[in-house]
Order: sequence, then C-alpha cells, then structure tokens
Amino acid sequence: MRERAVVLLSGGLDSTTALFWAKTRGWRVTALNVLYGQRHARELKSARLIARRAGVELREVMLDLPWLKASALVDAKRRLPDLPLAQIGRGGIPATYVPGRNTIFLALGVSLADAVGARAVVLGSNVQDSSGYPDCRPQFTAAFEKTAKLGTRLGNDGKPIKILTPLVRLDKKGIIRLAVKVKAPLELTWSCYAGGKTPCGRCDSCKLRAKGFAEAGLIDPGAAA
Amino acid sequence: MRERAVVLLSGGLDSTTALFWAKTRGWRVTALNVLYGQRHARELKSARLIARRAGVELREVMLDLPWLKASALVDAKRRLPDLPLAQIGRGGIPATYVPGRNTIFLALGVSLADAVGARAVVLGSNVQDSSGYPDCRPQFTAAFEKTAKLGTRLGNDGKPIKILTPLVRLDKKGIIRLAVKVKAPLELTWSCYAGGKTPCGRCDSCKLRAKGFAEAGLIDPGAAA
Repeated sequence: MRERAVVLLSGGLDSTTALFWAKTRGWRVTALNVLYGQRHARELKSARLIARRAGVELREVMLDLPWLKASALVDAKRRLPDLPLAQIGRGGIPATYVPGRNTIFLALGVSLADAVGARAVVLGSNVQDSSGYPDCRPQFTAAFEKTAKLGTRLGNDGKPIKILTPLVRLDKKGIIRLAVKVKAPLELTWSCYAGGKTPCGRCDSCKLRAKGFAEAGLIDPGAAA
Repeated sequence: MRERAVVLLSGGLDSTTALFWAKTRGWRVTALNVLYGQRHARELKSARLIARRAGVELREVMLDLPWLKASALVDAKRRLPDLPLAQIGRGGIPATYVPGRNTIFLALGVSLADAVGARAVVLGSNVQDSSGYPDCRPQFTAAFEKTAKLGTRLGNDGKPIKILTPLVRLDKKGIIRLAVKVKAPLELTWSCYAGGKTPCGRCDSCKLRAKGFAEAGLIDPGAAA
C-alpha cells in the first residue's frame, strides 16, 4: 500500500505544484489548509477546487491567533508592500511576514501525520520565499524534521516523519515548469495577497507570479473569481 | 526593562510551578493557554485564576483539530488508562498521548513570542511526562529551540527565542517542593484528566499527583471545583 503524506495546501501556485508533485511521486495525499485570518482567505476556495481536482481529502483548520495582526498579511489596515520587482526579498524580512507561520503549519502537519500514520509532510517553500521569510529556508525545515522525529509517536517507533520541500531550489519560473510537468491545475490557483475578487497585480505575490510566467514563456491561466 | 517570556499555562501543577518560577527569575510573563478539545477543559478555569493571582496577562487559544480524537485525553469515548502507579510511564507511549501536542504548543508559543518580542517560551515538561510522552523529553525541546532560532524574525535578528524547561530534571515531589519555594498557588491547580467536577483520583495524573504530595510530605491543597 502506498504511504500517506500530508500536503500543506494554501491554494496558491507553490503548494498546488507541491501537491501534484507528491501525487506523481506516488504518495497518498491528505491536504491540509490552514486559515489564520489572512486577508486573502480567497485561497481556501482555490484549495477546495484543487483538492477536488486532485481527488484527495482536504482537512481545513481555522486558527484565531490575534497576535498575528502584527503582519500586513493578516491586518487589512496595514499597507501591503508595493516594491519594484527587483527589490522584492532584498530588504530583510518583509511586512508580510507572519510570526512563526510555517512553524505552526508544520506543527499542525506533523500532528496530523502522527495521528493518521503519514510518513511525510510536504511544504511548498522555495527560493523566492526564502529570500525574505526565515521560516522558508532549508535549514529551518531540516531542523523541524529533527523535532518531528523526536517529538512524535511515529518517530519514537522508528518511523520518522519526513519534511519534504520539493520546490526548495526553484524560483517561480522553475515552479511553473514543474507545475506543467506534474499537470498541476494552475488555472485554479490563487496568489494575490490583497484579498480582492480579482488579483491586484501590484502586491509582491502578483508581481513574482507574473514574472515567473513571463520567464517560463507561458500565459498565466489564473482565473479571476 | 525586564525581558518578556511566554509561559505555556495549562492550569495544572507543572505549568503553574513553571510560571511562578519564571516570575521569580524576573521574567515579565505572558501566559498562553491552549484548549484543544481535552476532556479536562476544567483546566482553563484554573489557568484564569492562576494568571490573575500571578498578575500576568493570559492569552487563550482554542483549537479545533478533529484528528486529536486519536487520544484518550480528547475523545471522551475512549477509556483513560487506570494503571497501578508503578506501571505508569513504563508501557511505551500511553493512550493519553496527544499527537504532536507540545510541537503545536511550542509553535504557538514561539509565534506569540516572535510577535510580541518575548525572548523565551517556558514549558513545564518534566521527568514524569518524559517517561511516556516523546514530546516532553529534553532532546525534543532542544531541537525545537533550534527551529525557533532559524524560523523567526527574532532569531534572524540575532535575538533567538529560548525554550526553557525548568522542571525537566524534576519528578512530582521535586516539582511540589519547587512550587512551595516559588509560592505557586497549588490550591488553584487542576491535574485530573477525567473531566469531572472533582478529581477522579484514579487517572494517571491524579495518581502521580497524590504520590508527589505524599513523598514531599505535604497535604494536597488542590481544590474541588
């Protein structure tokens, strides 16, 4: 029987590609979506459509953590950065950093994996994220894998839970190419941070997505709502 | 100005002692209570009384993670272990293990610490827990400290968040003695797993508590509801 993996699925381009990569690799996937008050909760709609398309179970968790309002990604009263493309990720940790987000996501993923007997948690961290967000870097996920090994029933039983980051060496162009290869439904994905009905085209995430498609020589099939 | 610490406060004997230890050490404490569907949610009442007594802010988080029903501590339909005292913690991971619980608790604590600028997260792990629960052992918390250093804004800025486990070498007797020393209000704490209005006296937690008080030569002031 195929082994089970928990895939953290936001509904964006990266996590969707990671999910279809995992399917291609033969994992039996359980997707996990976490709502944490992000202004772009529109992602959840995408995550549901994507999980259905992939034919996988989707677990949804809603967190109410008021202190995350420290982030411009959660507090809609804060201004989203609107930097020139070349400066994105160059100015230290951006205002869209959510304190401990991937630590929480991986903790929830590892907890679910330990409960259902999944042998891996898959996260869509990549080069673009890791330029600004400390919790997207390979050293961080490697360290988390060690805590997962030590702190779970499965790890204790000699069946450690792996943290897989298939996109970790890829930029957006590379992710889009991988997405095409693994047949990820890019037209269902949602990237915009702003929380409108259609992508704003101005936030960091919209700009990086547009650049990725341009460099990959592809038209973005991304749907409006 | 004194540095801030986040103390994970369940409302039990261990975490209450850890909180008063932290105060004694001069930390400015923010307490964090996490409800995860445990049958002994009665703890929250204790946590509130204890935080008020300590004069510290209490943050409360409620999680709805259906997969935690794998644990007898969450699913009231499962039977709580009723082992002879000498066998508690000797039979591998007990039925009361909650998958990834301390991984989630520490993730939430680290996220809060990173948001409010706290330099430590304090956890009441101890010898008694670590005999059975893998996520209470010193190796686990040490590994988590490394992920916290790598995955946060504070760690990135050269101000890593410490994970402090002041009880890690203590058994219940030792914890009760420390509690007396730091003037922790033991009469407000709640230990019973069963979720009744008064402690059941039969679950692992009640038995270990009774043994601890007996060995410390003290009467348990623990209140009924």
